[in-house]
Amino acid sequence: MAGNTIGQLFRVTTFGESHGIALGCIVDGVPPGIPLTEEDLQHDLDRRRPGTSRYTTPRREPDRVKILSGVFEGRTTGTSIGLLIENTDQRSQDYGAIKELYRPGHADFTYDGKYGFRDYRGGGRSSARETAMRVAAGAIAKKYLDMKHGIKVRGYLAQMGDVVCELKDWQQVEQNPFFSPDVDKLDALDELMRALKKEGDSIGAKVAVMAENVPVGLGEPVFDRLDADLAHALMSINAVKGVEIGDGFAVVNQRGSEHRDEIRANGFQSNHAGGILGGISSGQTITANLAMKPTSSITVPGKTITRSGEEVEMITKGRHDPCVGIRAVPIAEAMMAIVLMDHLLRHRAQNADVHVDMPHG
Amino acid sequence: MAGNTIGQLFRVTTFGESHGIALGCIVDGVPPGIPLTEEDLQHDLDRRRPGTSRYTTPRREPDRVKILSGVFEGRTTGTSIGLLIENTDQRSQDYGAIKELYRPGHADFTYDGKYGFRDYRGGGRSSARETAMRVAAGAIAKKYLDMKHGIKVRGYLAQMGDVVCELKDWQQVEQNPFFSPDVDKLDALDELMRALKKEGDSIGAKVAVMAENVPVGLGEPVFDRLDADLAHALMSINAVKGVEIGDGFAVVNQRGSEHRDEIRANGFQSNHAGGILGGISSGQTITANLAMKPTSSITVPGKTITRSGEEVEMITKGRHDPCVGIRAVPIAEAMMAIVLMDHLLRHRAQNADVHVDMPHG
Amino acid sequence: MAGNTIGQLFRVTTFGESHGIALGCIVDGVPPGIPLTEEDLQHDLDRRRPGTSRYTTPRREPDRVKILSGVFEGRTTGTSIGLLIENTDQRSQDYGAIKELYRPGHADFTYDGKYGFRDYRGGGRSSARETAMRVAAGAIAKKYLDMKHGIKVRGYLAQMGDVVCELKDWQQVEQNPFFSPDVDKLDALDELMRALKKEGDSIGAKVAVMAENVPVGLGEPVFDRLDADLAHALMSINAVKGVEIGDGFAVVNQRGSEHRDEIRANGFQSNHAGGILGGISSGQTITANLAMKPTSSITVPGKTITRSGEEVEMITKGRHDPCVGIRAVPIAEAMMAIVLMDHLLRHRAQNADVHVDMPHG
Amino acid sequence: MAGNTIGQLFRVTTFGESHGIALGCIVDGVPPGIPLTEEDLQHDLDRRRPGTSRYTTPRREPDRVKILSGVFEGRTTGTSIGLLIENTDQRSQDYGAIKELYRPGHADFTYDGKYGFRDYRGGGRSSARETAMRVAAGAIAKKYLDMKHGIKVRGYLAQMGDVVCELKDWQQVEQNPFFSPDVDKLDALDELMRALKKEGDSIGAKVAVMAENVPVGLGEPVFDRLDADLAHALMSINAVKGVEIGDGFAVVNQRGSEHRDEIRANGFQSNHAGGILGGISSGQTITANLAMKPTSSITVPGKTITRSGEEVEMITKGRHDPCVGIRAVPIAEAMMAIVLMDHLLRHRAQNADVHVDMPHG
Repeated sequence: MAGNTIGQLFRVTTFGESHGIALGCIVDGVPPGIPLTEEDLQHDLDRRRPGTSRYTTPRREPDRVKILSGVFEGRTTGTSIGLLIENTDQRSQDYGAIKELYRPGHADFTYDGKYGFRDYRGGGRSSARETAMRVAAGAIAKKYLDMKHGIKVRGYLAQMGDVVCELKDWQQVEQNPFFSPDVDKLDALDELMRALKKEGDSIGAKVAVMAENVPVGLGEPVFDRLDADLAHALMSINAVKGVEIGDGFAVVNQRGSEHRDEIRANGFQSNHAGGILGGISSGQTITANLAMKPTSSITVPGKTITRSGEEVEMITKGRHDPCVGIRAVPIAEAMMAIVLMDHLLRHRAQNADVHVDMPHG
Repeated sequence: MAGNTIGQLFRVTTFGESHGIALGCIVDGVPPGIPLTEEDLQHDLDRRRPGTSRYTTPRREPDRVKILSGVFEGRTTGTSIGLLIENTDQRSQDYGAIKELYRPGHADFTYDGKYGFRDYRGGGRSSARETAMRVAAGAIAKKYLDMKHGIKVRGYLAQMGDVVCELKDWQQVEQNPFFSPDVDKLDALDELMRALKKEGDSIGAKVAVMAENVPVGLGEPVFDRLDADLAHALMSINAVKGVEIGDGFAVVNQRGSEHRDEIRANGFQSNHAGGILGGISSGQTITANLAMKPTSSITVPGKTITRSGEEVEMITKGRHDPCVGIRAVPIAEAMMAIVLMDHLLRHRAQNADVHVDMPHG
Repeated sequence: MAGNTIGQLFRVTTFGESHGIALGCIVDGVPPGIPLTEEDLQHDLDRRRPGTSRYTTPRREPDRVKILSGVFEGRTTGTSIGLLIENTDQRSQDYGAIKELYRPGHADFTYDGKYGFRDYRGGGRSSARETAMRVAAGAIAKKYLDMKHGIKVRGYLAQMGDVVCELKDWQQVEQNPFFSPDVDKLDALDELMRALKKEGDSIGAKVAVMAENVPVGLGEPVFDRLDADLAHALMSINAVKGVEIGDGFAVVNQRGSEHRDEIRANGFQSNHAGGILGGISSGQTITANLAMKPTSSITVPGKTITRSGEEVEMITKGRHDPCVGIRAVPIAEAMMAIVLMDHLLRHRAQNADVHVDMPHG
Repeated sequence: MAGNTIGQLFRVTTFGESHGIALGCIVDGVPPGIPLTEEDLQHDLDRRRPGTSRYTTPRREPDRVKILSGVFEGRTTGTSIGLLIENTDQRSQDYGAIKELYRPGHADFTYDGKYGFRDYRGGGRSSARETAMRVAAGAIAKKYLDMKHGIKVRGYLAQMGDVVCELKDWQQVEQNPFFSPDVDKLDALDELMRALKKEGDSIGAKVAVMAENVPVGLGEPVFDRLDADLAHALMSINAVKGVEIGDGFAVVNQRGSEHRDEIRANGFQSNHAGGILGGISSGQTITANLAMKPTSSITVPGKTITRSGEEVEMITKGRHDPCVGIRAVPIAEAMMAIVLMDHLLRHRAQNADVHVDMPHG
């Protein structure tokens, strides 16, 4: 039932299967008059694109996005924006092998259980290829947030397996294939990837994503809190199994005297809360982490069953990243941007009359 | 803007401030013909109620819920159910002290920043008292899920500070004030609480919540995934800073060969996924964890500012739990039940024609 | 399924049966800082109230509305507003007579068919008593629209049976029990009512409702057009069978050269469109008409069947207006105000950056 | 703000401008396993298509719809269906003439007022060309309703100017260019059209649309009533100024004893209600009428102003129907089908447990 839409006022609805004719989406609620070109969207699509480095799947989709509506003479008109990416690399593969199988860790079993049958080609709708449209839609949000409010949304790889990357240098993130901000860990990451390739195995990852310059006041108590909507958006990304805001699970062993962010005349003295109090942005940087499970498509043999219940052993051939976390950075940014954009519009709908000078921030 | 509603088909809308006249909610979309009494709701309300043990706030609200509509001759009619809890314990307290202050770790600052002013009495709408209505609404969902589908939703305290409680015995959970399933940790928990009381400090906690007997197929790709909606619902609970499904953040250092749950003729061989694949329930037990921050209201002095920006030092007097995690168990159950109920209705709307015999589960 | 809510940003959710304990609603999305008292709501409730004149049902409900939340120190806080009206006049009537019958023209048959059973006391949820909460919620919208934008929403009785009332004098509307703006028709209306009372019959009516000073730009193409949302809101009122915007059905026999409203330097030269072009407000007065069917509860005997299918002849005793159209004026105003309020918020969410000087209006 | 979506469970979201690259839509919530081909959609698109007769605009768009996703091996998969129609007939016209003008009766003025500027090519998003996607999406609903429930949705031209067409023969409707069921009025219609062409003027129309075999129980009290949602959907069609359910505005002068549909053992004795009681379908045929204003684009000169407020006289050149009502029949059917489909899914979500044998129908 109608689950392919996210957002209330800035609303993104997507369609498309991994090996279908095309992927597309409709972005509704974009404010009018914003300069927008296909190039604005292409940049993040290229960051997400498979085949960017030797560590990501060699599938070669140019992933060229087309704007079909909602932009006139270079500016958004305020009407719905249709976006399209044609699937040009639909290899006429033999799917006989997976057609009758439930690949472990995949959605084959649950799609069959829900719908009675499934588009088995490359995972169909459950493929991570679907996230391309999130990135395209998110790029519109990112542009608006930055252009109108100076809000910057950006992410990085925080951990892969046991290799922890510290936030040493934002510049570095765009200069290595891992989205790592920690130049000292590039060798370790490289080594881990080689080992995994060799073993035919995969690894999980932690991705961090942040938004700076978010104004005070975004988020709607009590259910549509900003943190709750971020959790929804980030958990909706394929392979995500956990979401943290601010200190996240570290709070379990924190004292109140340690966790609560004290305030002085010059502002908050710390940011354990991750920029959100009571579900509403505080003006501090919003911080979130995502836990991404290891790719399920690996060449290590695994046990599973067929549609008729027979036991088989299988391996997954084909083009797959050993760590889906790598390419998840632009997707996580897109989802955070979509949520912030939605809440920016929601906030100003209700609170346009409010003019308040907060002591700081 | 209109953030006080959760759910699409099973829809809960709440109102009420901590020290206002009453709390209430409207539960819409309840199937007709279900036996329902106020006692059905009161049980979980009593589990959540402050003052239940010496470890929770001594505020004495009878928290009696009234059913105002939608039930006729003992059965739900299919129309909207109005629920009401009167606030009988509105102590005519002097709020002069906090009226002009931004309590650290609280939503005072962000509510003022969003709305221009706030109901400062006991936190107003941002108070955890609001969760009483979630528990009442969740009890309707729990009853339906159990009665019609045998789905059981239940939770426990998994960790408080550095005291880890293992899931040894479900019976135990209802027999101690901590909701601990681990009888061997009761002393350690007790000791920790005493120490905190003495220090005037508080501590974080991890709460686990599960649903058994969930059928295959609940959850809507791609945004309204079951895990995404659970993340939303659980993160919307006051004080929650992190949500995990299945193995959660442990996946960061897992291999694909370890994480993916293999399947054999007798079913899944493990449950790292937490009962959800591709956003859709797999028939396995659904498992989630919540990280709850330590109570911000403590008597350890903290620095903050007034509405006009002056620095002050403050302590929070009044009735507060040293660990909000304790009373969060019934709230977490309620939120999981609300999400499952909503997705059960959503699933059968679209898939009523689907009759599929899955190999197992 | 969850049909008791109207609006996206200004959202009203209601509950309550005719002879239940109470009626209530939650109004979400109200901008903060607006002065609001129970008296603000009571005025329109009193206009709608049964027993106001000898032509309306003598049921004597004081219909006192209570504000339970969302208002602090006399101003709205921006959080959800809970409203309650207790049913004080629940006569312990004998419903044996209608319990097993499907009253013609009523929803008895369809409620049974939908839900399997029904609250038969006074029509339960299908009673027009439900509209009291619409009026209370609409009063909040009316106040905001007027206070902040000078928008006036008001209605009148345009026709009853064959008595046509012309819009001669707005003042007159509040000074007679028919909401007629045409003092010359009061005798004819009175005569018609007397005749109907005598015959035990009822009559239909046409109600007109208007909004002045609506700014240019409200309404969202292409589905949530302002006229479409008005049609939804007005048709959702009990007994309404038709809705017109502007010239309505008269357009069927109009020429394009006659219908299109020409524009000159001093503005539109006519208002056949009823203030809406392309689904968006044009700055002209918004005009709508409603067709209201005659009351089904009459003492003229009618044929119907019982729940088990047996034919019977019945009359409806009890307290009923011979023309529901009379009391519908405040309800129609409320629904128009709710829609305008919602669209005002929606408009400014997306178009806050737009600063346009239209040639006029 | 996000107004390009209709429906809750069967949800249609559209994009596209009259002279943009393409029109498209996403249909979400389609039950899985339904046979669906592009031909299924093309049939109604061809009925709506301009240039079908000499009375409709000679614009020659093949209007070939492509299914981009959501259908696999000829059956719907349950995931979102992307539809696309490329605009092949984008004449490189000179829009200099209308770029700076507000055409009377058009949305030029209101789009400019709302968004600050507009896509002026052929009306942009406000063009009736947008309705092509409604027809395509509606065809999916029509197919499902018929295939699974035997529900037939069909419409006809009921009146054009003063020529009234009676429902004499459904077969006839598809055999003349007017969608008239009344063969005796074809000459009069033809004559009227010729006269209008000659005068360069246009005329309004009334369209009737019906649904047979609708089960008892569709519609959600109290706001999402079936009639209210139909009114919304039908009023959202370009040029519609009025909507009636059942007897519509004729009820204004009806007595209760005449209007209420009596019931006997063999069922309802009349259908003044139009198949809906209390907002819920009664099992009788659902009937609705639409009033469609005369085309605003005519060659009779009219007064208007430019964007800078100067008065001008203008005529509209180009390809335009003298009566938009003619082509509205398939659009009205599509909208009714979309609403019924949505309510069918909504009804079974909540009432799957209800098994009731109504006395008849």
